[in-house]
Amino acid sequence: MDKGRVEAFSDGVIAVIITIMVLELRAPVGDHLHDLRPVLPTFAGYVLSFVYVGIYWSNHHHMLHLVRHVNGRVLWANLHLLFWLSMVPFVTAWMGEHPLATAPAALYGFVLLVTALAWVLLQWTFLRLEGPDSPLAKAISRGLKEKISPVVYLVGIAASFVWVPISLACYVGVAAVWFIPDRRVERQLGMR
Amino acid sequence: MDKGRVEAFSDGVIAVIITIMVLELRAPVGDHLHDLRPVLPTFAGYVLSFVYVGIYWSNHHHMLHLVRHVNGRVLWANLHLLFWLSMVPFVTAWMGEHPLATAPAALYGFVLLVTALAWVLLQWTFLRLEGPDSPLAKAISRGLKEKISPVVYLVGIAASFVWVPISLACYVGVAAVWFIPDRRVERQLGMR
Amino acid sequence: MDKGRVEAFSDGVIAVIITIMVLELRAPVGDHLHDLRPVLPTFAGYVLSFVYVGIYWSNHHHMLHLVRHVNGRVLWANLHLLFWLSMVPFVTAWMGEHPLATAPAALYGFVLLVTALAWVLLQWTFLRLEGPDSPLAKAISRGLKEKISPVVYLVGIAASFVWVPISLACYVGVAAVWFIPDRRVERQLGMR
Amino acid sequence: MDKGRVEAFSDGVIAVIITIMVLELRAPVGDHLHDLRPVLPTFAGYVLSFVYVGIYWSNHHHMLHLVRHVNGRVLWANLHLLFWLSMVPFVTAWMGEHPLATAPAALYGFVLLVTALAWVLLQWTFLRLEGPDSPLAKAISRGLKEKISPVVYLVGIAASFVWVPISLACYVGVAAVWFIPDRRVERQLGMR
Repeated sequence: MDKGRVEAFSDGVIAVIITIMVLELRAPVGDHLHDLRPVLPTFAGYVLSFVYVGIYWSNHHHMLHLVRHVNGRVLWANLHLLFWLSMVPFVTAWMGEHPLATAPAALYGFVLLVTALAWVLLQWTFLRLEGPDSPLAKAISRGLKEKISPVVYLVGIAASFVWVPISLACYVGVAAVWFIPDRRVERQLGMR
Repeated sequence: MDKGRVEAFSDGVIAVIITIMVLELRAPVGDHLHDLRPVLPTFAGYVLSFVYVGIYWSNHHHMLHLVRHVNGRVLWANLHLLFWLSMVPFVTAWMGEHPLATAPAALYGFVLLVTALAWVLLQWTFLRLEGPDSPLAKAISRGLKEKISPVVYLVGIAASFVWVPISLACYVGVAAVWFIPDRRVERQLGMR
Repeated sequence: MDKGRVEAFSDGVIAVIITIMVLELRAPVGDHLHDLRPVLPTFAGYVLSFVYVGIYWSNHHHMLHLVRHVNGRVLWANLHLLFWLSMVPFVTAWMGEHPLATAPAALYGFVLLVTALAWVLLQWTFLRLEGPDSPLAKAISRGLKEKISPVVYLVGIAASFVWVPISLACYVGVAAVWFIPDRRVERQLGMR
Repeated sequence: MDKGRVEAFSDGVIAVIITIMVLELRAPVGDHLHDLRPVLPTFAGYVLSFVYVGIYWSNHHHMLHLVRHVNGRVLWANLHLLFWLSMVPFVTAWMGEHPLATAPAALYGFVLLVTALAWVLLQWTFLRLEGPDSPLAKAISRGLKEKISPVVYLVGIAASFVWVPISLACYVGVAAVWFIPDRRVERQLGMR
């Protein structure tokens, strides 16, 4: 069972997710530059979520390069990941409308956390199929970022009940760490 | 006439269907966690519909692995299936806004029923093209789930006029049965 | 310059067009079956437009099977076709809200007319590239449907100023004629 | 690392961007032809933006024909370009609602400018990977249009504070210049 269609479908869903988020950026009613001000928090949230979805797409791209097969379990682990990614526009919109409120910031972190766990689950599902000596297994054996990110998300969620800027800093921080493309995989591929 | 573009187009339509459903999840007006409560039925409906659309995508993926050709008839049987799948966001939105009302639950079941029939029609169209000794014919010869599902949908539609939770249980039940990837096809492919 | 990416991009745009049209089907406010009644004209318009877009996708699929190359001119003739196809959701929504009004029915016919001309233009652009002895040239040499359709659209537009049902009949009629997959092309491909 | 999935993902995002813009064309409330008048500026903006996005897609198509590899840096330079392209529907909607207002016209030009710079950045990223003797390097060595366009966008932005039609003329002018497919690349490919 070849992996091409899983890539194509995931590309399609992620392309729609990343693009429909911009529909939340409503054109302001007025026609002055300062009328853009209420749109700014939504815009900032859009940038952050765009980077997150971009990271998942980029890592998805890398991971599927290292695997050879898919099975039914993988299809569903992948759909599960796409489900949580598809919640990103919803929580981005809520946070954009209430930039410094506790509940939206906590829910945003929760969705990031569950998406990260869905990613780890997809990795495990692939690992079970590919075996412990596969290129994938070697590439992700260290996996420091995967272990730290959920902890930072949890800190971010907790911080949202104290002071929301701390939790936003957590989310931005994790994005920054992941932004650097997964060198382990590139090294494994002998790309550089 | 090769099947690649039918797969690509179906992937595109299904990716958009599964993703634009989340646009029905409007960000709540308030900024407290309990403001999410009115969104919960829509969210639950979204999960169910996501699973349904995911099942169709997964089975579509499996079926197209077993066939070699497409013709004009197949193109239209496939478009017909996609048409009914594209009604899922509409009925999900209606049911989400009226979680325990009869008509939305009945219409949801109706769309599931017609979509299931469209699926069977697509199978028949492929069978006619592939012949009785094709791998597809062997894989679906038993087809118990295809026969039972429409009956359960009918029960669900009827139950919506009595007590809506019964009909919701019917829809969740069928989804659960199909959730297990189509082992018959995987066995045919010698995948396990 | 290979044609794969033109197919992929056209599939993507057509998949989005055909799917976002359903967003015009707003969930009714009430929860009774008769609350669906105001949605019915929009639904009927959606069915017609779905069939039209499906016809274009199917014929696009057939035509690209017969060609070997694309050039810059073809890219833009194709984008021009996609532009007019992308107007279909807009005119469908307007007609759905005013089912028997003159202007929406006339504009719907106008968009169908211009889309048909854009299709012919794309065919010519391909013909110029492929040459008079190409399989495409042979397949479309007769092209009766391409010649009749614009005339019927013109009749439909004119009829909308007299009695809208006549113009709707024209649009449904052309769709019915095209619905039959393009046998000429299938014959050329030796498919049957 | 192969470039196929970068093409597929970019096609998906651009297809959604170009198509969801039409969602900004709301069906008029009335049912007369003159009720279309308030939609006209939005329609004109849609045409211009459709052409711009089409130009980027076409040039993207050409550029990826000339390259052999992608790396992590390219993935992100490409996502960065897609980000700014995804802002086009937002600024088109704002300008459509305020056709002759300064701020929307200036912001439209700003997004065009930043998108153009993102395009140049993507070119540079590819050039670094492909080397100075690559076909890409030869094809874009002259690159007159890339150098002039940002200047014209800047003039357009400045002109919006004086008289908006001048800035609109600037944006239309650049589109017209780019509309001609990138002959340098086609010549390099020996296409004609």
